[in-house]
Order: sequence, then structure tokens, then C-alpha cells
Amino acid sequence: MTSRRSGRRPGDPDTKGAILDSARELFARDGFDKTSVRAIAADAGVDAALVHHYFGTKHKLFLDAVAIPIDPTVILGQLNSVDVHDLGAHLLRTVLGIWDGELQSAGVALLKTNLAAPDSAMIRSFIAEIILTNIATRIDDDTDVRTSLLASQMLGVLVTRYVIRLEPIASMSVDDVVAKVGPTLQRYLTGEL
Amino acid sequence: MTSRRSGRRPGDPDTKGAILDSARELFARDGFDKTSVRAIAADAGVDAALVHHYFGTKHKLFLDAVAIPIDPTVILGQLNSVDVHDLGAHLLRTVLGIWDGELQSAGVALLKTNLAAPDSAMIRSFIAEIILTNIATRIDDDTDVRTSLLASQMLGVLVTRYVIRLEPIASMSVDDVVAKVGPTLQRYLTGEL
Repeated sequence: MTSRRSGRRPGDPDTKGAILDSARELFARDGFDKTSVRAIAADAGVDAALVHHYFGTKHKLFLDAVAIPIDPTVILGQLNSVDVHDLGAHLLRTVLGIWDGELQSAGVALLKTNLAAPDSAMIRSFIAEIILTNIATRIDDDTDVRTSLLASQMLGVLVTRYVIRLEPIASMSVDDVVAKVGPTLQRYLTGEL
Repeated sequence: MTSRRSGRRPGDPDTKGAILDSARELFARDGFDKTSVRAIAADAGVDAALVHHYFGTKHKLFLDAVAIPIDPTVILGQLNSVDVHDLGAHLLRTVLGIWDGELQSAGVALLKTNLAAPDSAMIRSFIAEIILTNIATRIDDDTDVRTSLLASQMLGVLVTRYVIRLEPIASMSVDDVVAKVGPTLQRYLTGEL
């Protein structure tokens, strides 16, 4: 294998970093769907097979590129057995369970960094193409409108509770937040708009 | 008048800047309510009367310190004649009217900067002590819970529509967003929680 950019080889410790750099650049520029592993490999000067070897799927490469320590599609997959009419509360409970735990500081750092980024393409692509497409499969009508409304309330909870730490929402129990905000999410998913 | 810190005088062009620096530092550290004009003046090495001369009230100094180009309490004051049971929709329409206009880029820059700040005290203080206390005067019960829920959905709309620019909420008409999100805000203000 020959590198077009800097003679990188599979064993080179910088090769993974170069692939991640290229991935971040291309995902941010073109979004998740329109970026191919082949294009990332070409940009990094390696073979596409090496990218798959290091990172697995394009999906996993994206999560590594944005430094997300869990795979949200696995979490969302666990909600597939939940009745769609209970999905709002379950989704919120699941997200709060993760953010209230040991991943909170990583989550806050990621959210702050991505919200402040000059170009919002990375976080937009993550939310739209990884999170919301997954949820959209559960609902029948107006999926784009419904899932973007859901995102607005979900992000609003994350920002006020964990980033701004506005009281009392910052200190409310998960049960309490779910009781109060769950109906909003459920209306956005399946209710009258 | 003698400056304790650096011999600043009323005519010194750096004096306004020094006051703003002190204001930012103290507001961020102690919040709006617990920071006095006297303390800011002392920190800046000037007389409190000079702070009032340059900036008017503590409230206006805060707005200048965080570079907010409009006075939100004036906007909120205009909503005092709106029936509290219509306040959710009116509030949202008013906020979107401002953010959809020429202040949008300033708003986005401010929101990004404040969300990414290492210490969230400034934006928390602004939201809690200037915006929400104002709205709280209109509602009867659970005011802190209700206004913090309102803030979560309002901030969520601002972040998804203007910062992340998630579609379709980024391109929806104001009427459409108000129709869909207004009921959420109204429930938080006066509905069953």
C-alpha cells in the first residue's frame, strides 16, 4: 500500500490519527451520508480496507471522529421494543440516565465544542443522520417535522440541565423531568401538532 | 476621584473598558443579583457614580457587559398586556421575530460563546435573573419549575433553528413553529405538569 499524501503505512502510529483527521474534515464538510469511506481513505492517503480494519463501519468511524464514547444506535435499538406511544418518556429516561452518569463530563464537553464550532455541519449531521433517522423509522407521518421538534426539546433539556445548569431543572430527579417533559416529546412524536 | 488600581479618571478612554471587564468578571463569578455596582466600581478602581454615569442601571451595565444589543425586559414588558393563557405563543413569536431579523448573527455568536464558556454562570444568571424572573411574575404556582421548563424548550428552539440549523425546524415559518411549539410553552407556563 502506498500513501499518496505522506507515505503512511498500516503500522504507522500516525495513520489512525490521519484517518480521523480526514474523517472529521469530510464529515464536517459534506455530512455523514455524502461522505464515503473511500473518500476519507483517499484524503488520508491510505487504502479503504485499512480504514475498515481500524474503525469497522463508516458509522463507527464517525463516532470515533466526533469522540462519542457510546454508540447511540445501540441505545436507540434497545428502545425498539417500546410501544411508540411510550417512546417519548422512554427515550428521555434513557438519555438522562446516560447523561446523569459517568459520561456526563464527556457529553458536556462534546456538546459545548460542537455548539460553538464555526460550522455546525458535524453536530447537525450527527443528530439528523444518526439519531433522528433511527427514531423516524418508528413514526408514520411528518417524520422530519416531528423528529426536529423532538430534537429541539431534547437538546434544550441537555443544554439547560447539563451545560447552563439552570435550576431547578438541573437538580430535578430523572423521574420528575420525565414526568414533565415526556408528554412534550410524545406529542412531537405521535400527537396532534 | 482617585483610582485604586491604575489611576483611571472619568475622561480616560480605558475607563469604560475597565468597568466592563470588572462587570463581566464579577457577574460571571457571583451572578447578577449578588453583584453590586459598588463592587464593580471598586474592582475597576472608579467611583460608583461614574459607573452609573456611563451605563445607567446595573441592569443596563449587565446587558452591555454581555454585549446584548437589545433590552429583553423592554420586550418582555410589551407582553404584560397579553393574557397569561396566550403567553407561550406570544413569547415565542416575539423571540423568533427578533432572532429571524437582523440581530440573528449577533444572537448566534452570543449564544455560542456563552454556551461554550468554561463557566456557565453568566448565561445562567442572565436567563434566571433577568429573563425568567420577569416571566415568573405572570404565573402563580411552581414558578421556578415552570420557567426552567420554558427555558429548556425556548433554548432548544434557538439552538436547533439558529445554531445547529437542523431542518426542517430551521426553515419553518414563524407561524408554523409557534403553532407546534407554542402549546408546549403554554403547558409549561400554566398547564398540568
